[in-house]
Amino acid sequence: MSSRPKVIGYLGPQGTFSEQAARLYQARLMDGQVLLQPFCSIMELILAADTGRIHQAVVPLENSLEGPVALTLDMLAHEVDLKMAAEIIISVRHHLLARKGTVLSDIDRVVSHPQALGQCRAFLQTRLPRAALVTASSTAEAAKAVADSGSKWAAIGNAAAAAVYKLEILASDIQDNRANATRFCVLGKEDCREPTGDDKTSIVFSPRQNRPGVLYEQLAEFAGRGLDLTRIESRPAKSVLGEYLFFVDIAGHKTAPDTAAAIAAVAASSSFFKVLGSYPRWKEQ
Amino acid sequence: MSSRPKVIGYLGPQGTFSEQAARLYQARLMDGQVLLQPFCSIMELILAADTGRIHQAVVPLENSLEGPVALTLDMLAHEVDLKMAAEIIISVRHHLLARKGTVLSDIDRVVSHPQALGQCRAFLQTRLPRAALVTASSTAEAAKAVADSGSKWAAIGNAAAAAVYKLEILASDIQDNRANATRFCVLGKEDCREPTGDDKTSIVFSPRQNRPGVLYEQLAEFAGRGLDLTRIESRPAKSVLGEYLFFVDIAGHKTAPDTAAAIAAVAASSSFFKVLGSYPRWKEQ
Repeated sequence: MSSRPKVIGYLGPQGTFSEQAARLYQARLMDGQVLLQPFCSIMELILAADTGRIHQAVVPLENSLEGPVALTLDMLAHEVDLKMAAEIIISVRHHLLARKGTVLSDIDRVVSHPQALGQCRAFLQTRLPRAALVTASSTAEAAKAVADSGSKWAAIGNAAAAAVYKLEILASDIQDNRANATRFCVLGKEDCREPTGDDKTSIVFSPRQNRPGVLYEQLAEFAGRGLDLTRIESRPAKSVLGEYLFFVDIAGHKTAPDTAAAIAAVAASSSFFKVLGSYPRWKEQ
Repeated sequence: MSSRPKVIGYLGPQGTFSEQAARLYQARLMDGQVLLQPFCSIMELILAADTGRIHQAVVPLENSLEGPVALTLDMLAHEVDLKMAAEIIISVRHHLLARKGTVLSDIDRVVSHPQALGQCRAFLQTRLPRAALVTASSTAEAAKAVADSGSKWAAIGNAAAAAVYKLEILASDIQDNRANATRFCVLGKEDCREPTGDDKTSIVFSPRQNRPGVLYEQLAEFAGRGLDLTRIESRPAKSVLGEYLFFVDIAGHKTAPDTAAAIAAVAASSSFFKVLGSYPRWKEQ
């Protein structure tokens, strides 16, 4: 038994959706020795887990409206050797936050994380068409910038950020679509080795022949064994236009014989291949 | 013969990569009656083509490093009824631009289009780790903002923008990867109806059963007919997490019998389906 607490990093400052995800994960670990630590950027957070400065990192992976978080996927593929130990899915509600006394018609600048700005595109286009859109490294960082500013700025963030930075909610639930959920992953040196009975496995690969047509033959390895894919995501391979990496999630643990056989076959026909890990499917409690 | 000139829109102001793409397209049309018009945002530009205010729009579609331009794909799928009449591929070279006399160590803010900031991530992280990153609607708009600013700002843009806005190039070719190319499409009311002998067809669809596993059966329609796919791109369907739209490019014109049969089969097994158009494959001249 170690007396040194495990540190789990998240995208800070306080009041982000990442913190909300990290708290949910912490609660499920049921380990009193876990501390949460905020980081300033996704890149720093992932590198801290990769170099072992922290035990695990809770990192945003994809959003139901905006799609993948490109930086997370690109770092997982190209820059670090980390495994996924868990997934966490949370519903996202965005509000327009401003200092007390600000009215909507005064606002000339809206600050937020680029994905939050993208998720509120229709509201911004209709209600604040002349406001400059400025990016911040997180929704909470945006709320902090607005709290510190003297001007007619607003932030897009959640209710926790409004409370932390003493801002008013000028408009609630301003996201384009009510079905707005973000999926986070927990990254560390190990994935979840033991099957729980309802698991997923994430892999990333680039077909050896670098034609999307080849993807069909690779997907046949899963389809032929009756293995369900829960996600497929393409990213540029960062070489020439038209070459891709595919991020695929498979229902089941990597130690199941069929899954292991399909993964081995895909690895054999890929020029680039990584198993990102097996982990329990997220369930609301 | 009409004496009214055709107007082709691009993402302005002057000096953008979009303008460069639009000029290449204009040159190939060999029609003296074509005028180019800059627009302030991709959304405005696409809507101008959709409402018929302009004849065609030259719009960025994907980049070899950053991946798809989400706004273009999402508008093509959900918001407009436009066809692709051509593709244009240009090599992208990014430079760090600043007012005369600025030195690298002074710079506290870097302005550019989000994709350009993303494409220069390694340079920014290493050489300007403390600079705030601020988004602009285009690389040329960023250069303009820097030219108009009194402070220690820099823009990421191309050599044309440096010339137009009288900025100095502080660092050349700062993109992460030398293989940086952007693919543009030309959007209008019609695609290119006549086969040229070397064409591509773009479609977008969502499998009826909303499982990525179903994609395999749909790709079989192309593989079984020996039709090569040159691109496959997933985007969230904007409903629930895990439902996707797929943007697929097929080698060949939609009027070829095999292509037409495969497209019809995919349409039949999709809950959402659009042919975005057939157009000649881009060739360097």
